Amino acid sequence: MLEELRMEVYRANMELPARGLVTYTWGNVSGIDRKRGLIVIKPSGLNYEDLTPEKLVVLDLKGRQVEGDLRPSSDTATHLRLYRAWPQIGGIVHTHSSMAASWAQARRDIPLYGTTHADYFYGPVPCTRDLTPQEIETAYEEETGNVILETFDERGLNPVFTPAVLCASHGPFCWGKDAAQAVYHAVVLEELARMACQTEQINPQARPAQDAIRDKHFYRKHGAHAYYGQG
Amino acid sequence: MLEELRMEVYRANMELPARGLVTYTWGNVSGIDRKRGLIVIKPSGLNYEDLTPEKLVVLDLKGRQVEGDLRPSSDTATHLRLYRAWPQIGGIVHTHSSMAASWAQARRDIPLYGTTHADYFYGPVPCTRDLTPQEIETAYEEETGNVILETFDERGLNPVFTPAVLCASHGPFCWGKDAAQAVYHAVVLEELARMACQTEQINPQARPAQDAIRDKHFYRKHGAHAYYGQG
Amino acid sequence: MLEELRMEVYRANMELPARGLVTYTWGNVSGIDRKRGLIVIKPSGLNYEDLTPEKLVVLDLKGRQVEGDLRPSSDTATHLRLYRAWPQIGGIVHTHSSMAASWAQARRDIPLYGTTHADYFYGPVPCTRDLTPQEIETAYEEETGNVILETFDERGLNPVFTPAVLCASHGPFCWGKDAAQAVYHAVVLEELARMACQTEQINPQARPAQDAIRDKHFYRKHGAHAYYGQG
Amino acid sequence: MLEELRMEVYRANMELPARGLVTYTWGNVSGIDRKRGLIVIKPSGLNYEDLTPEKLVVLDLKGRQVEGDLRPSSDTATHLRLYRAWPQIGGIVHTHSSMAASWAQARRDIPLYGTTHADYFYGPVPCTRDLTPQEIETAYEEETGNVILETFDERGLNPVFTPAVLCASHGPFCWGKDAAQAVYHAVVLEELARMACQTEQINPQARPAQDAIRDKHFYRKHGAHAYYGQG
Repeated sequence: MLEELRMEVYRANMELPARGLVTYTWGNVSGIDRKRGLIVIKPSGLNYEDLTPEKLVVLDLKGRQVEGDLRPSSDTATHLRLYRAWPQIGGIVHTHSSMAASWAQARRDIPLYGTTHADYFYGPVPCTRDLTPQEIETAYEEETGNVILETFDERGLNPVFTPAVLCASHGPFCWGKDAAQAVYHAVVLEELARMACQTEQINPQARPAQDAIRDKHFYRKHGAHAYYGQG
Repeated sequence: MLEELRMEVYRANMELPARGLVTYTWGNVSGIDRKRGLIVIKPSGLNYEDLTPEKLVVLDLKGRQVEGDLRPSSDTATHLRLYRAWPQIGGIVHTHSSMAASWAQARRDIPLYGTTHADYFYGPVPCTRDLTPQEIETAYEEETGNVILETFDERGLNPVFTPAVLCASHGPFCWGKDAAQAVYHAVVLEELARMACQTEQINPQARPAQDAIRDKHFYRKHGAHAYYGQG
Repeated sequence: MLEELRMEVYRANMELPARGLVTYTWGNVSGIDRKRGLIVIKPSGLNYEDLTPEKLVVLDLKGRQVEGDLRPSSDTATHLRLYRAWPQIGGIVHTHSSMAASWAQARRDIPLYGTTHADYFYGPVPCTRDLTPQEIETAYEEETGNVILETFDERGLNPVFTPAVLCASHGPFCWGKDAAQAVYHAVVLEELARMACQTEQINPQARPAQDAIRDKHFYRKHGAHAYYGQG
Repeated sequence: MLEELRMEVYRANMELPARGLVTYTWGNVSGIDRKRGLIVIKPSGLNYEDLTPEKLVVLDLKGRQVEGDLRPSSDTATHLRLYRAWPQIGGIVHTHSSMAASWAQARRDIPLYGTTHADYFYGPVPCTRDLTPQEIETAYEEETGNVILETFDERGLNPVFTPAVLCASHGPFCWGKDAAQAVYHAVVLEELARMACQTEQINPQARPAQDAIRDKHFYRKHGAHAYYGQG
């Protein structure tokens, strides 16, 4: 069952160490089959070199394990929360990649400083508020999903236009139309985070790029009038 | 047609990922055959691993596509603008390389802090002004070329002595006598940008190198009295 | 004798250059056989490419050499001091890894800024006081062990919950249940140290993660109620 | 002639790109045969991949070319000046390695912040004064050697105890008993320079390590009472 999705999610997981986004087991990718309402996700704490498509875990959207002997990622409840809220997304990734996690630890949004950012994110990458001690102690992983949704709701953000978030004191979650694009966005985010940090080091008074640059670059790549790539 | 130039531009493009200057498809190199008035450039949004010399696109200096089924780089109009203005140059490269793009996002010239810089650039690497919203919305890529030319004109810079520019909130364009040299300059620029940032971190009051150092090192490598290399 | 431990300590030593934690010969790993009261440690100043399991040195807990022709690591007395004081640990590693050693040179504890840290360390990574000139001149390596123990005693730290220390003006020592886990903690420490430095660069007013986050993440991975991994 | 020295200097040169200390042709290593009074040095501007032992250039201490068709490194006069002044040294290397060159551009000595530094350098790594315009314009490379000697003389430094210098606005020169050790010191210097920069970032009020630490670590590795390594 779900042969193709398993392979897709497997490949997306293996891209994380290949791109230098994870140390040891720090990270997990999932993908969803919207028709069947099933997700495929990395097992908890498994080394990437030991991962195979068969070892991936299949769950339904309520978190009931449908296939696989291994325990799913400890972050599974966060993935499920986002899949339930956002039907537009098909893949999710969580990492502790160095620069993005540092912005999360600094509890700051990543400002849109240039075209590299605007090519993929239509505005700053938001950082959530802190969870309350009660949220942490009761249903930590699900509440992590809730605070992500709260952040997007309160700021009126569209997850398709802003395909990543920083969880305060923790690290990034990214998503996309499928698992591969979610990981693509995680790679882009890490590079944006590095460049934003360097930009402020070079000029502590750096200002974000103007709105016209943001619009031009985002819509050069996205939507009906896009003219980047081979269409 | 243009077999040799195609191969040269292909090799220069492939040097970008090999030297760590590009993530995914972020970057493009072109070269020109001045006699025929034709340029060869990377197709838009193509992965480097899928690139072949045959897939490169050939255009005339007015931007009319002469060979190739693929759409040329979305930055083609910037390349063309520079080729038309500066007959001395034979190759152009655009990247979002991490440190050079960070200076561009910080909207600062890169000061000439030492001999590594002076060996290739006879003065600071200039950063353009912001484009106006109107320039961005009408003919963005061509206006990017115009603001580069404006920067060099207003400051009285010779593109052969200053073979790179930073486009504000965007990233670098570099050039040279051919595509290979343009990429060489892009590698040098990235290293200069990193070292200038580190220099200011180590000494926030760092001063540029004195003019005599700039003159000595630049002319040790360039011009009639050069004595570096096997000449 | 100690075939298995030799192999384990050999592999742990070789992991140091593989993970980028050492330059040249800067680092050493040891492991202990608690039943026999013997430790296995890297020889002093030997290049990793020349290391074999047979070249490792065996000593008893008083530092008497039991096997091996080579001189043991110059830091052996520090290892022995920790093994004698802490029966819970089975492996120790010392490196000069770039970011952790920089915090040690800055003489600062590494604050617990986020979940990456809390997954392995239940609080800041402590930095020792300076040794006195007398301690340095008499029995430097043993006194290094003493000041580590003093740091943990005075702060009431459990070495199992805080498996690393920074020696002021020097570098880190890490430990674990065996040599492999000690090196694992050294890799984690280096990444934490890098992220903490970046966090403060991005936000000079960064605050540590709240206690609830520390508790949640540490106990998600450790102790009776852990639910990370495959148990 | 000088087969062995050629091979030694060749290997030392090739170590530079292997260790990430040079970009393109930026760097050169030489070695000396004190009995014959001859030095072997890299040709100017040659790519490392094109270098062979046969292409190295042999000169006497007055700079007269004795063997080789290629022009010697443009920095040859600096090497010769140091060999003539310091009979204790057998190899010299010049690089533009990123962090050491950044300290040189910042025109600052590298403070001795810890044991990694003290294991190889008995005090700060000194930075020279600026050359005067006249010194630059007349005999630049020889005057570079002169200002290095002036720095060591005025500060009463022993080149064996301080095997490197930073040339203001330029980059490092390192040396050792032979070409291999000179390159070894260049690798150490680059790592020290990186760690010192990070140390000041983590703690802008960082103080150098105390003198007792400097003495302990330097003499643990050097001189009659050394006990590091296999003696």
